[in-house]
Amino acid sequence: MNTSEFRRRGKEMVDYVANYMEGIEGRQVYPDVEPGYLRPLIPDSAPQEPDTFEDIINDIEKIIMPGVTHWHSPYFFAYFPTASSYPAMLADMLCGAIGCIGFSWAASPACTELETVMMDWLGKMLELPKAFLTEKAGEGGGVIQGSASEATLVALLAARTKVIHRLQAASPELTQAAIMEKLVAYSSDQAHSSVERAGLIGGVKLKAIPSDGNFAMRASALQEALERDRAAGLIPFFVSSAALVAPGNKEDMWLHVDAAYAGSAFICPEFRHLLNGVEFADSFNFNPHKWLLVNFDCSAMWVKKRSDLTGAFRLDPTYLKHSHQDSGKKPAFNIFLTDGPFHVSFQHWQIPLGRRFRSLKMWFVFRMYGVKGLQAYIRKHVQLSHEFESLVLQDPRFEICAKVTLGLVCFRLKGSNKVNEALLQRINSARKIHLVPCHLRDKFVLRFAICSRTVESAHVQRAWEHIKELAADVLRAEKE
Amino acid sequence: MNTSEFRRRGKEMVDYVANYMEGIEGRQVYPDVEPGYLRPLIPDSAPQEPDTFEDIINDIEKIIMPGVTHWHSPYFFAYFPTASSYPAMLADMLCGAIGCIGFSWAASPACTELETVMMDWLGKMLELPKAFLTEKAGEGGGVIQGSASEATLVALLAARTKVIHRLQAASPELTQAAIMEKLVAYSSDQAHSSVERAGLIGGVKLKAIPSDGNFAMRASALQEALERDRAAGLIPFFVSSAALVAPGNKEDMWLHVDAAYAGSAFICPEFRHLLNGVEFADSFNFNPHKWLLVNFDCSAMWVKKRSDLTGAFRLDPTYLKHSHQDSGKKPAFNIFLTDGPFHVSFQHWQIPLGRRFRSLKMWFVFRMYGVKGLQAYIRKHVQLSHEFESLVLQDPRFEICAKVTLGLVCFRLKGSNKVNEALLQRINSARKIHLVPCHLRDKFVLRFAICSRTVESAHVQRAWEHIKELAADVLRAEKE
Repeated sequence: MNTSEFRRRGKEMVDYVANYMEGIEGRQVYPDVEPGYLRPLIPDSAPQEPDTFEDIINDIEKIIMPGVTHWHSPYFFAYFPTASSYPAMLADMLCGAIGCIGFSWAASPACTELETVMMDWLGKMLELPKAFLTEKAGEGGGVIQGSASEATLVALLAARTKVIHRLQAASPELTQAAIMEKLVAYSSDQAHSSVERAGLIGGVKLKAIPSDGNFAMRASALQEALERDRAAGLIPFFVSSAALVAPGNKEDMWLHVDAAYAGSAFICPEFRHLLNGVEFADSFNFNPHKWLLVNFDCSAMWVKKRSDLTGAFRLDPTYLKHSHQDSGKKPAFNIFLTDGPFHVSFQHWQIPLGRRFRSLKMWFVFRMYGVKGLQAYIRKHVQLSHEFESLVLQDPRFEICAKVTLGLVCFRLKGSNKVNEALLQRINSARKIHLVPCHLRDKFVLRFAICSRTVESAHVQRAWEHIKELAADVLRAEKE
Repeated sequence: MNTSEFRRRGKEMVDYVANYMEGIEGRQVYPDVEPGYLRPLIPDSAPQEPDTFEDIINDIEKIIMPGVTHWHSPYFFAYFPTASSYPAMLADMLCGAIGCIGFSWAASPACTELETVMMDWLGKMLELPKAFLTEKAGEGGGVIQGSASEATLVALLAARTKVIHRLQAASPELTQAAIMEKLVAYSSDQAHSSVERAGLIGGVKLKAIPSDGNFAMRASALQEALERDRAAGLIPFFVSSAALVAPGNKEDMWLHVDAAYAGSAFICPEFRHLLNGVEFADSFNFNPHKWLLVNFDCSAMWVKKRSDLTGAFRLDPTYLKHSHQDSGKKPAFNIFLTDGPFHVSFQHWQIPLGRRFRSLKMWFVFRMYGVKGLQAYIRKHVQLSHEFESLVLQDPRFEICAKVTLGLVCFRLKGSNKVNEALLQRINSARKIHLVPCHLRDKFVLRFAICSRTVESAHVQRAWEHIKELAADVLRAEKE
């Protein structure tokens, strides 16, 4: 495909995308296909000779779309929102064209520098403490990770390196393995599985701390666990929490705050209090790719001391420190070490080496919405979830299962888990709306998450009418 | 921005991208900016009210482009190639619009299923042993990772889990830490730093094995290291290698073959022999996002036993196995566990939870180029590197430093490291072409990598004339 064909096909694709977005409400939100549906529809190996673009664009509707779960349908209320906006899509087109791999400053200075500034912009929108920003040449800074899972893992590894260095400095005879055997990380018993996975990868114990009535980690329970574990000769070193706990008891522990979904709301002054205490954290992370209109992937992470991250990943700090003065012995494969004197080289802040020019998406979105536009977007979603909550509360057959703060409503039929499972099954089989469940303690609960950029009150009302009808069916069937 | 404005702006962006690509040869390949150039050019916080699209598109040329290293310029010969093609860009537009997060089959069946089939297509192009494919419902399979670093880490973690389980099954009293303390992984002393980083993250020792005259791991040296380490009570468990070594000595070791750059060439029968012996590997990885025209990120990884990967990452295998029969006790946060009975749930194959619909890029590229078109692309690059090699060989002042097999030429002035460093500095200061160096043993070497999709013989010839001129300057300056 040459450039003039790309001009033509690119514009056709823009129209395809626009048509898809305009018509998404008319598509069935969850697909009908059975596992294995796709393989028989396409050849079993790649063609030797090129297919035409017409062949491919026709196959999208024939082969791909029948198997798509439409995350941006206004009838999609499952999981969490995932961001989708036109400015982000435009930025992604530019990102693909520039196609730089920004592992170092020299690999594309604009890629590193715009990211640094955008993370400051975003940090200021959240009123993060200045210690997390780069602009005043302090010790902190922000970086775009691919996912909250990676941010949690990076934080845990940085904490692990730090505690090992500290203990070995005091007792040089201690081996890394001897220390690791005693390390303990903590998270809430309601935490996302990514924390458990980070512990697994990092080779350290992870303990779940009981949560309170609002499903947040109980500070007193954490304190008890710390005391019990220290008394048993273990070494607590890391806490991952969605909210701030026990800042007075840090004692050389790394505190990571993960607000993957909720973080976007903190740009609104009325929700900022949920982040109070972040000044005690060593690292903070949330996902603009969830609720801030920056298409996946864009997980924003800040640390107070960026040397904690680079210390965990930089393989030969001594060499690198001198790479511009010293022409002596160098590692064999040093093609990535051609950094200028600029202090930020994001390869040392993350798991992969390569990275795309993701800050372009933030730049386009922040500028084309403006802070006020983004705040209005968050507020609209929160308002819609309260609208759904009040509909649920008006129906005595139903109950709300957790306080509604942002865009998520956890609700259920008063009654057994079985009847709620039956209700969910009817909802997802009907395929008019899409929900997924969760368990809160022993209760099977339906989650109604405000997700789509285009969801309006009318969709919420229709969804509720539909749920009520199916609930009546389920309750009738139960009686029979 | 509403849909009708997106139609208009999207088409403008298509033209911007097309113009950028058409005019890239005229842009200076490496930027003039100094570290910190960007921050003063933009406001220090996000605007409250929206900016217009015109403002943003104008700022691209004013603020971004002056700081871009143009990886797709035909005068870019640095690092390794990174893929850029129009079909991949079109697919990325569609990927952004669908915007699904394909962690499970149910999260978007087409996303999981197309990936499975595309990894089979690609595996067949490489003539991978059938054990690595999914199509015959065997135990193997392929997955798209974000980078070779992640593939290496995933392989190492799977190997670590496997050896720990095996040893604990034999000796239940062994703790994980007691085993990890003795684990040793091996790679070539010429290996990419990602292997060292995987060892660091995984908390295991990594030993570098001396390489031979072609900079490949010496099998005899590996064998000696294994024997020495076993005699010392250590537990060798993992080898990462760019080529196949010592298959006869596997003895419960995991063999990971990383052909990040070279792998794309194996679709040509004349280069396939470089992959001989892959049948002994447990995992194999290469990056279509380097040299196979599938834009970053797309790192292709296959394993012989996919249960080895899912065993390392799946957090509660017992629960998940029964998730469709059992309505009993479930973990609190189970919204991601809504898988159908389909056997592939890629969240258990990788570090992050979320993932984009990256197989669309493979599908578009494989179909629009056809296997023959992709082979022709690889062959053209290899031919250009041999053309450059022969130019170097015609000049008695220069030498070739490693056998030229694919698209990379390592060369230098006969003489000191200092004179070669001076040459490289002149080249990159002139900014007409862009190269980076490496060290081969103690020698400072210039790397000339054929990178751009649009590079032609004329660009290579011009680059060589330019290098010769600067070399003459350097040699003259040295004499003075």
